[in-house]
Amino acid sequence: MTEVIRSAAALREKVTTWKRSGMLVGVVPTMGALHDGHLSLARAARGQSDRVIVTIFVNPMQFNNPEDLKKYPRDEARDLALLKADGVDVLFAPGPEEVYPRGFASTVSVTGVSAPMEGAFRPGHFDGVATVVTKLFGMTQAGRAFFGEKDWQQLQVVRRLVTDLNIPIRVIGCPTIREEDGLAMSSRNVRLTEQERSVAPALHRAMQAAAEAIRAGAPVAAALAEARDAVLRAGFAEIEYLDFRDAETLEPLDRPGPPARLLAAAMLGAVRLIDNIAV
Amino acid sequence: MTEVIRSAAALREKVTTWKRSGMLVGVVPTMGALHDGHLSLARAARGQSDRVIVTIFVNPMQFNNPEDLKKYPRDEARDLALLKADGVDVLFAPGPEEVYPRGFASTVSVTGVSAPMEGAFRPGHFDGVATVVTKLFGMTQAGRAFFGEKDWQQLQVVRRLVTDLNIPIRVIGCPTIREEDGLAMSSRNVRLTEQERSVAPALHRAMQAAAEAIRAGAPVAAALAEARDAVLRAGFAEIEYLDFRDAETLEPLDRPGPPARLLAAAMLGAVRLIDNIAV
Repeated sequence: MTEVIRSAAALREKVTTWKRSGMLVGVVPTMGALHDGHLSLARAARGQSDRVIVTIFVNPMQFNNPEDLKKYPRDEARDLALLKADGVDVLFAPGPEEVYPRGFASTVSVTGVSAPMEGAFRPGHFDGVATVVTKLFGMTQAGRAFFGEKDWQQLQVVRRLVTDLNIPIRVIGCPTIREEDGLAMSSRNVRLTEQERSVAPALHRAMQAAAEAIRAGAPVAAALAEARDAVLRAGFAEIEYLDFRDAETLEPLDRPGPPARLLAAAMLGAVRLIDNIAV
Repeated sequence: MTEVIRSAAALREKVTTWKRSGMLVGVVPTMGALHDGHLSLARAARGQSDRVIVTIFVNPMQFNNPEDLKKYPRDEARDLALLKADGVDVLFAPGPEEVYPRGFASTVSVTGVSAPMEGAFRPGHFDGVATVVTKLFGMTQAGRAFFGEKDWQQLQVVRRLVTDLNIPIRVIGCPTIREEDGLAMSSRNVRLTEQERSVAPALHRAMQAAAEAIRAGAPVAAALAEARDAVLRAGFAEIEYLDFRDAETLEPLDRPGPPARLLAAAMLGAVRLIDNIAV
């Protein structure tokens, strides 16, 4: 049975009871519109915690684009059914006025890892993420938090703020879940037209080819240029970035060596897709 | 017996043991150079918690003036002796590299209450306070935090960030402790010359007179002007602010009504003194 809780006070009461009994609480922060990627996080949480909270909050503070916020898919009834099937204990789904009540005045900011890529193309995005994640950690008092590697840069920002602010929680990154054709699962995929959907896997394919080329010794700049060309040729409208970077610091790399990622964001019609893979 | 702990990891281990036994932890964040004001906080914590941590950390991030940081009084041996006498369980005294290790990149900011007065005269000060306080709350995992009303604006900033970031701690403000002549106790008082020390109580005296005048119906502007004149006549070099404000929002007030404070900062020779009282 999955209990739906909407207020931070009610959640705290529930969590306090659990913690008094020595239970380890796991949290999976989401914006809803759940897919198998989210459910894999819930299952990881289930396996590594005594009680599991999935949060659903479409966080206005992290949307730099009001249209994207408006169009973000929402279907709580369907989400709840999926969480019930997966044995999640609590769906915490607060409204905006519960998360940002009148008088709210605080921001958590992370510099460095948050600056390039998503940070550059979505001004304010990571302040919104860092602030709401800090709040959700406080509200849930969880000991473990599960995030998808799909949002790789977000994962590094969250790891950074947890370390920096000494938040007593362990952050666990879980592998990206993909469709059979390689497209990374994303709540935004439902906004693709049928034609766009058939084009979408080209992003991952081009990144895989670039990763192989770099591993095989090709110059990084050439491999990235070839990948960008391939993505545009396939029918993407625009590439915001397709970069080769240190996996942890997210500094650009011009050759392989330290743990590294290829990371990309590209527009396919009106939908912005992101992806990343290890190199 | 007061145990001295210098690493966040060792502190977390200690605190985890306490919390497993269901103990309520109280924390008193300080910058050391302890006086009776701090000790009254430690005693309040003792009375309202099962275990008491006093932290001593002269936080470079909250000093806008490098000279003030350099001259800030430090005497840990004396501080430890005082805490032992008061039955404090742990003195947590981390070094700067423990609090801000290489790669540190996060900031907690509070707008609104942090903007005027100290925020205006000490740029960046409250970001430093908000960030270190958030860290200390994470490191100590305390359920109660004790702050002096002497730093009234700081207390409002801390209350705001605890509410906003859903930090599971209760913030308790404790009354300002004063010398017999009314001077608010402060670690900076030891830097006053004998002559300055004799002048110093004029600040509190002038504020008391203004509060009485306002309560008696005098126009606020006139009462504040009279207080400023009295402070300068007494020998203070400069008044940074001497304001009448809403006690919680810190918005300026032009007449009494809601809970209100008089708040002031003034330079006496090279020493900056602050004070505040209820009206």
